[in-house]
Amino acid sequence: MGMIKISDAINLINSEIEKISFPAQPGMLYRPAEYVLAAGGKRIRPALVLFTCNVYSGDYSEAILPSIGIEMFHNFTLVHDDIMDNSPLRRGQPTVHVKWGRDTAILSGDAMMVLANRFVCGAPAPVLKPVMELFNATALEVCEGQQYDMDFEQMDTVSEAQYLEMIRLKTSVLLGAAMKMGAIIGRAPEKDAALLYTFGINTGMAFQLRDDLLDVYGSEGFGKQRGGDIIANKKTLLLIRALSAADHTIRERLMNLLSSSWNDPQEKVAKVLEIYNQLGIENAVNVMITNYHLKAVDALKKLTCTSEAKNELMQFAESLAVRTR
Amino acid sequence: MGMIKISDAINLINSEIEKISFPAQPGMLYRPAEYVLAAGGKRIRPALVLFTCNVYSGDYSEAILPSIGIEMFHNFTLVHDDIMDNSPLRRGQPTVHVKWGRDTAILSGDAMMVLANRFVCGAPAPVLKPVMELFNATALEVCEGQQYDMDFEQMDTVSEAQYLEMIRLKTSVLLGAAMKMGAIIGRAPEKDAALLYTFGINTGMAFQLRDDLLDVYGSEGFGKQRGGDIIANKKTLLLIRALSAADHTIRERLMNLLSSSWNDPQEKVAKVLEIYNQLGIENAVNVMITNYHLKAVDALKKLTCTSEAKNELMQFAESLAVRTR
Repeated sequence: MGMIKISDAINLINSEIEKISFPAQPGMLYRPAEYVLAAGGKRIRPALVLFTCNVYSGDYSEAILPSIGIEMFHNFTLVHDDIMDNSPLRRGQPTVHVKWGRDTAILSGDAMMVLANRFVCGAPAPVLKPVMELFNATALEVCEGQQYDMDFEQMDTVSEAQYLEMIRLKTSVLLGAAMKMGAIIGRAPEKDAALLYTFGINTGMAFQLRDDLLDVYGSEGFGKQRGGDIIANKKTLLLIRALSAADHTIRERLMNLLSSSWNDPQEKVAKVLEIYNQLGIENAVNVMITNYHLKAVDALKKLTCTSEAKNELMQFAESLAVRTR
Repeated sequence: MGMIKISDAINLINSEIEKISFPAQPGMLYRPAEYVLAAGGKRIRPALVLFTCNVYSGDYSEAILPSIGIEMFHNFTLVHDDIMDNSPLRRGQPTVHVKWGRDTAILSGDAMMVLANRFVCGAPAPVLKPVMELFNATALEVCEGQQYDMDFEQMDTVSEAQYLEMIRLKTSVLLGAAMKMGAIIGRAPEKDAALLYTFGINTGMAFQLRDDLLDVYGSEGFGKQRGGDIIANKKTLLLIRALSAADHTIRERLMNLLSSSWNDPQEKVAKVLEIYNQLGIENAVNVMITNYHLKAVDALKKLTCTSEAKNELMQFAESLAVRTR
């Protein structure tokens, strides 16, 4: 088998996920899991497991079950996060707790977590231990990230370092772990597995900061409200940067904008945006994104795999860091 | 190392659990986990893992981490079940969702589930796969049991078979799995591992039915309200049996008692108890308990282990099936 592209891997994952048959009973446990998994998503994480496995072993078949485990785990976190964040919609559809109620969302989420474990345990016996250790360490970090995210809502100020650590845990480690897991299953050299983890972490950071930026500076679309983070007073890197870069007067103005109530939220967005522009926040965050992207590229260059594989990963990293929506 | 007793194993587990050091941060994730684990509990499940492992290998050290995983998993289910059941107290202390709020209970429960996995993954490499498969299959069954239990609250009638299947999933399989897990880690013959599972399942069934019976016929104590199940209209085996054994008149009377509102709940308990006595429910359930106990003993007799070990298990089974509170 030659190199597969990440887009091929996404198609493979989609057809594998369609094949999953959940037990019929108890319906309230398995129908929500089915619903969440069928609602789509980009399937980037499981595709990366297949891709990196295939790069090193020329085959991805041993990575299929663990890759579905990674996707199942990701979806489990979404179900529980949506309860905690009171989110009404996910991928354009009602969230599980809205559609079936809170208790069902808790319990079917739990079942998805168990199913995730079971799929990851489908890793080949010789690498089962390192795969499970990576998975469990990562899963715990993702919980920590979500906890910090919730903690931040109650805090008056969040430092840049705290914010970056939160998004590393909540978002980046799962991307890194997906790439490393595929490498372990493909029996890649340990050094390459570690480099892919570094690549994934830094690409994940660039991805999340781009997400923060696009909330304010992106083209609208996909049902996302422009400036949603500003309206919700979310402590994104943009706001944290603005608060630390501002002088006393501007900081007071910004704090006032955040604490006022607004009949027209878009007026608030416009006024905060004005301050961001004055402080050069877009450029500052773009510099940070570039730095993370360069760190990812640095790790990428050191890999021992084919340049064809490196090119594919380079395109992938760019698509996450430089995207416009 | 000679045979350890189950009471020794309980002491061992308690001292191992005291040694667990949770990360300091994020505090809202790990303090609740610490709190739940420190609140005690009988530690029967992890003790059984150590005990059966030791019976077959003469050593329990390889079973310590997985046994803590089983206890951690059990405690995770309690944290999430308590949210779903709106329980204010557990082991005489405020439940996590009451003490820290619902979101914290969801997320720290999730973290406990991940930690449970991590501990179970501490099983020796040669048996890691069967241990994980047993654990995951069991964890999923426990979720199914909780779902059926919640489903039953919404149903008008629950059959005896449905109820027995629910308690098998919610309670018995984890006892069976604990015993089988220890046997696998102790490299017991496959036949013995399967027999211990059967023993655990049937002892678990006897235990739960005894629990149902003690709610009504037990001596009071330990903060439990006499007849709590009756007051809550819980569809226990006693009620299911009574409804199916009653003639039309008595069934109507029983249904009326359940649907009426009571200023003095103990009056309701007394009246329902009168019907139970009239129908011989205590005796009928005792016969069922004895049948489960006999099935457990039957499996026990076929084990290839020492008679000393069998005696210890026999005493254990009797203590669960024949206890008075």
